[in-house]
Amino acid sequence: MRIKIINPNTSSSMTERIGLYARRFAAPGTDTVAVSPDFGPPSIEGYYDEALAVPGLLAEIRRGEAEQFDGYVIACCGDPGLFAARELARGPVVGIAEAAMHFASVVAPGFSVVTTLARTCGMAWHLAEIYGMKRFCRNVRAVEIPVLDLSDAKVAPLLIEECRRALIEDGAGAIVLGCAGMVDLCETISSEIGAPVVDGVTAAVKFVESLVALGLSTSKRGDYASPLPKKYLGLLAGMSPT
Amino acid sequence: MRIKIINPNTSSSMTERIGLYARRFAAPGTDTVAVSPDFGPPSIEGYYDEALAVPGLLAEIRRGEAEQFDGYVIACCGDPGLFAARELARGPVVGIAEAAMHFASVVAPGFSVVTTLARTCGMAWHLAEIYGMKRFCRNVRAVEIPVLDLSDAKVAPLLIEECRRALIEDGAGAIVLGCAGMVDLCETISSEIGAPVVDGVTAAVKFVESLVALGLSTSKRGDYASPLPKKYLGLLAGMSPT
Amino acid sequence: MRIKIINPNTSSSMTERIGLYARRFAAPGTDTVAVSPDFGPPSIEGYYDEALAVPGLLAEIRRGEAEQFDGYVIACCGDPGLFAARELARGPVVGIAEAAMHFASVVAPGFSVVTTLARTCGMAWHLAEIYGMKRFCRNVRAVEIPVLDLSDAKVAPLLIEECRRALIEDGAGAIVLGCAGMVDLCETISSEIGAPVVDGVTAAVKFVESLVALGLSTSKRGDYASPLPKKYLGLLAGMSPT
Amino acid sequence: MRIKIINPNTSSSMTERIGLYARRFAAPGTDTVAVSPDFGPPSIEGYYDEALAVPGLLAEIRRGEAEQFDGYVIACCGDPGLFAARELARGPVVGIAEAAMHFASVVAPGFSVVTTLARTCGMAWHLAEIYGMKRFCRNVRAVEIPVLDLSDAKVAPLLIEECRRALIEDGAGAIVLGCAGMVDLCETISSEIGAPVVDGVTAAVKFVESLVALGLSTSKRGDYASPLPKKYLGLLAGMSPT
Amino acid sequence: MRIKIINPNTSSSMTERIGLYARRFAAPGTDTVAVSPDFGPPSIEGYYDEALAVPGLLAEIRRGEAEQFDGYVIACCGDPGLFAARELARGPVVGIAEAAMHFASVVAPGFSVVTTLARTCGMAWHLAEIYGMKRFCRNVRAVEIPVLDLSDAKVAPLLIEECRRALIEDGAGAIVLGCAGMVDLCETISSEIGAPVVDGVTAAVKFVESLVALGLSTSKRGDYASPLPKKYLGLLAGMSPT
Amino acid sequence: MRIKIINPNTSSSMTERIGLYARRFAAPGTDTVAVSPDFGPPSIEGYYDEALAVPGLLAEIRRGEAEQFDGYVIACCGDPGLFAARELARGPVVGIAEAAMHFASVVAPGFSVVTTLARTCGMAWHLAEIYGMKRFCRNVRAVEIPVLDLSDAKVAPLLIEECRRALIEDGAGAIVLGCAGMVDLCETISSEIGAPVVDGVTAAVKFVESLVALGLSTSKRGDYASPLPKKYLGLLAGMSPT
Repeated sequence: MRIKIINPNTSSSMTERIGLYARRFAAPGTDTVAVSPDFGPPSIEGYYDEALAVPGLLAEIRRGEAEQFDGYVIACCGDPGLFAARELARGPVVGIAEAAMHFASVVAPGFSVVTTLARTCGMAWHLAEIYGMKRFCRNVRAVEIPVLDLSDAKVAPLLIEECRRALIEDGAGAIVLGCAGMVDLCETISSEIGAPVVDGVTAAVKFVESLVALGLSTSKRGDYASPLPKKYLGLLAGMSPT
Repeated sequence: MRIKIINPNTSSSMTERIGLYARRFAAPGTDTVAVSPDFGPPSIEGYYDEALAVPGLLAEIRRGEAEQFDGYVIACCGDPGLFAARELARGPVVGIAEAAMHFASVVAPGFSVVTTLARTCGMAWHLAEIYGMKRFCRNVRAVEIPVLDLSDAKVAPLLIEECRRALIEDGAGAIVLGCAGMVDLCETISSEIGAPVVDGVTAAVKFVESLVALGLSTSKRGDYASPLPKKYLGLLAGMSPT
Repeated sequence: MRIKIINPNTSSSMTERIGLYARRFAAPGTDTVAVSPDFGPPSIEGYYDEALAVPGLLAEIRRGEAEQFDGYVIACCGDPGLFAARELARGPVVGIAEAAMHFASVVAPGFSVVTTLARTCGMAWHLAEIYGMKRFCRNVRAVEIPVLDLSDAKVAPLLIEECRRALIEDGAGAIVLGCAGMVDLCETISSEIGAPVVDGVTAAVKFVESLVALGLSTSKRGDYASPLPKKYLGLLAGMSPT
Repeated sequence: MRIKIINPNTSSSMTERIGLYARRFAAPGTDTVAVSPDFGPPSIEGYYDEALAVPGLLAEIRRGEAEQFDGYVIACCGDPGLFAARELARGPVVGIAEAAMHFASVVAPGFSVVTTLARTCGMAWHLAEIYGMKRFCRNVRAVEIPVLDLSDAKVAPLLIEECRRALIEDGAGAIVLGCAGMVDLCETISSEIGAPVVDGVTAAVKFVESLVALGLSTSKRGDYASPLPKKYLGLLAGMSPT
Repeated sequence: MRIKIINPNTSSSMTERIGLYARRFAAPGTDTVAVSPDFGPPSIEGYYDEALAVPGLLAEIRRGEAEQFDGYVIACCGDPGLFAARELARGPVVGIAEAAMHFASVVAPGFSVVTTLARTCGMAWHLAEIYGMKRFCRNVRAVEIPVLDLSDAKVAPLLIEECRRALIEDGAGAIVLGCAGMVDLCETISSEIGAPVVDGVTAAVKFVESLVALGLSTSKRGDYASPLPKKYLGLLAGMSPT
Repeated sequence: MRIKIINPNTSSSMTERIGLYARRFAAPGTDTVAVSPDFGPPSIEGYYDEALAVPGLLAEIRRGEAEQFDGYVIACCGDPGLFAARELARGPVVGIAEAAMHFASVVAPGFSVVTTLARTCGMAWHLAEIYGMKRFCRNVRAVEIPVLDLSDAKVAPLLIEECRRALIEDGAGAIVLGCAGMVDLCETISSEIGAPVVDGVTAAVKFVESLVALGLSTSKRGDYASPLPKKYLGLLAGMSPT
């Protein structure tokens, strides 16, 4: 089985970190490939960044279909372009917020999301809603660290502190990490706070792996039907559906 | 007051029709300009089309800010890129589905949306939900006519028939037209079925006009704060926030 | 176009203030008339006051229909008698809480209502619910000032302070003023707190103006059908539907 | 214990029927009195009728407080003036739709309401929502018989037929009768359809009886606090809160 | 009329206290019997305890049917086995949380539940949801006292203190006691805090009494149909439905 | 990794079928064991059956903990005893309805459940709600075949027919099989109807496998904390928590 993991921002160091953990958690027999688009924003910190990350992400899905991947992970916690990607893909496409929230809802009566910037908290709430996970989401908290500063050594203590507060103040039983860039901190945080911490990247790899193993692909009935063929104009003409 | 109306698809005949009706309904003292992006899909009939229409739309919002427009209308019934556009704009940005649903909820206890293709019904339901209009939305119905065939003479009778069914079968008291391309049929349908029919294009023009007259601009606290400055890579580099 | 604005309490000084701002925000070509009923409570500070304000309000709607008004504003933040008024009126009828909440939901991801007495907070929550605006309503706050004391000079600083708290503590991006009597403070508060503040009176005038311009009247299918003719007994016999 | 049952319309034959069944179901030691207001509409078939029935109803609650009643039933299925009445009353006030829905939700997984005119179905849905009973309410059906024609012999078969349809088509396990005027048909319908049928009048009598026996009165903290004293003007001056 | 009250834990002192108050609040003509199962947990403080209390409870319902009881109260605030019990019983079966929440929702705009252990708060929220009472439930609070220590003299002041906090901090207008073992403290607490306090045991007795008086039994259409006859294996073979 | 799959009914032929498919879909390195309790109902077709299946199921979880299993599947579509099982288990516990609904919500915009008896449809709706999956659940349909007759050759065509109807009439994009006993029909149905069909048994095996691989166990903060030690009486004394 081959799974393509797309980090929708263009920061390759982050993509490498993502790829490393994807490989570590993939089952024997699962090949994972982690890529970034070759155009778009270096980090996604708002709706505008997100909107402009999506074309690059979709280009990777298209390439992935040509390369016959069995499934896809969208490795950004806003799950950008998820539904559009499902129109393109035969196999399953899972967002990392989606996978993390689903899994968290099963190991605890409620979870809190701990994310980067406060301006993206609304996005997390919105995703919780559309995935049906709002009833489990106790709170969305931000540590106010930009996405690309997450690898700084000072970040772990701040995240641990915020996660502890989530357990106590929100009554959360588990934590969902709100950014793909936190993938390497998951284990540390979990053992520090003594509660399940769900990282979306590794969660989504297992989620897609499961779906593929079960033979479940994206339903082409209704919303996720393939794009209708038409000619796009100008800059994005190369992405016209055929 | 100057309002920019952006048809996010690249079909100029549709943009002209939109512009005509915008001007007709604008108050004295309101200048409206209707444009299409110079790149992207010729029609929006799914999530993929929508995702690839958004960059062109946002480019028009950016240009609009440079030109000091007071407000914007997004003239496609999926309201693509609405939140991203709000990050860019000082003034209000309103989607045509948004405006039409708000107004319909005030003139009737419930409305049905009548749209083009069944594959986009899910989008309309989703918008109804995020605008708080789900409690008013009795049904979303499709006549299975592609967006660019709406100007065909055979369309009006089909739409009228479907709207009649909505009144009777759904218990709707009003109709929301589900595509900007239906703007010229609004009056005819309303007089045929004897119930309020809300076209989003004209509704959104009045909605934005009202907000501007009231001095209400997009709040920069929280989700709609301006994009953080950063360098985008490749194809979309020209759209980097500064 | 002629719009009748009905302050459902009998306090004429408040009606004058309302009328002044209605005229100031009305478009050229819109005539507004602001009136109070000639019977009922001098201020509305609970369900009982509200219930007894409604007959006087409805009498004004009846008169308005005879005088061929094109639309109506109910200028009290409990939006009393709104549905009954819609049964009487051909044109649109809009409540000021309704208009303010709709507009606020478009310029910010969430708003807080700041109102007079805590005992009326439940009403505001209830209205937010029936208009579909609960998902945008972050909080309803009271400054504990009686309606008729709002013109006191000491009120503005208290309101500004409470609005500031709403932005910070509730994460609101905009404020909805919870009483028609605050109409003259809207601009001051907005410039003090640096965020959109929506006054219902002026919002509702623009809302009705828009509906009338769009040719949208109250649907007579379903709940808002005209009252069935019958003879009322005693005190209210003069209000029997004919 | 003394319970006052107020039929908010002025039709005394209906009040008598209500009084008869109230007495029949009251426990030993419970005195019930059924009254109509001396002003207002003869039947309630819409929001306008309802709004103009409320003052008369509230006058009866005021009188009831002077006469030291222990609790009140509002015997119209729109539960008009319920919250205003609670501001006036020390003891509990229960609407007949409220009591019937509560009881029905306990004897079946879901119920349908069968009411008089289709134009009042929206009201029933609204009440189901504010009482938390929407999740149990499978449907609201109308037989299109005016309230004052319910005593006609032809009515029972029509109601039985509609109730049967509700069981089969809606998957309802119980029926809530949607009008106080159906009180005398409850037993017949139930034995005909072989499922629980809840009449609101008798249900509300038992509900109030229970609350009074438990020593539960209307909480004066928050929304149901007594009306603030003030002078009303004109026609309704006699109803000023003191 | 004969009502069987089943305390689903095996602690007979608690059962006696429950029986005492049931008799005290029952109407003349109502016989109440309070029992405990002869097997199962001595107190219910979590889902596991609850699951293992249910068989004993259901054995008592079966016996009750043989003894022709008219209705049943499940006297534990988790309302364990409620739906299973309804499959067995002809007459109504009411849980004490259910009855208390229903009644509280009618005497105040909102209530808080004050219960024993924090680990059971989730249960109370869940019940509030399935009964439609979530919209009235302001908060669920725990005093962290084990169920069997409730008779300790030190408990009353702690409960009073927590109830006071609920009124102020949660904006609750009434209190629902979260454990059958608090039945004897209801009056004291209410008079101390000056707001309605609803004890579930006495509430449920009145609730069942009302349903029986109204002739309402459990609907056998749908979910509560009698168990299908089959042979159970081993330990619970004696409980096979016949 | 070792996963224990508990069929909560005592029918060993069904357990064998479940075990077969569990093994077939388990990853290399995952050992699965399928068992039935040694007491309780032979099939679960209502709340009463379910309640009496739970003690046997919990006995198997206890045994499983002693045997150091890493995770558990509850292989009945009512997901009986799920929360109680989570109190006992260190590792994750997943219900088959839970897993199937989660996975279905990711491969299609909506699913329908196709189950055995109509009397259990309410259960499926209830589970959809508590898992947050109600927004994806288009319908729950029953073929009216008892659980133990599912192996009959006549069943497959009936199920296929009902699934087809679900796609067309409910607008479902995927199907969730509503009974563990349908596990062997999943592939056939899917290829016949041309849409994803999710069987809960195999779904739950992959779900638990993923959680264990991710190092996620049941959070012991809050509702799922271990049962408090106490002595149970009589028949179930052997199950007292220690």
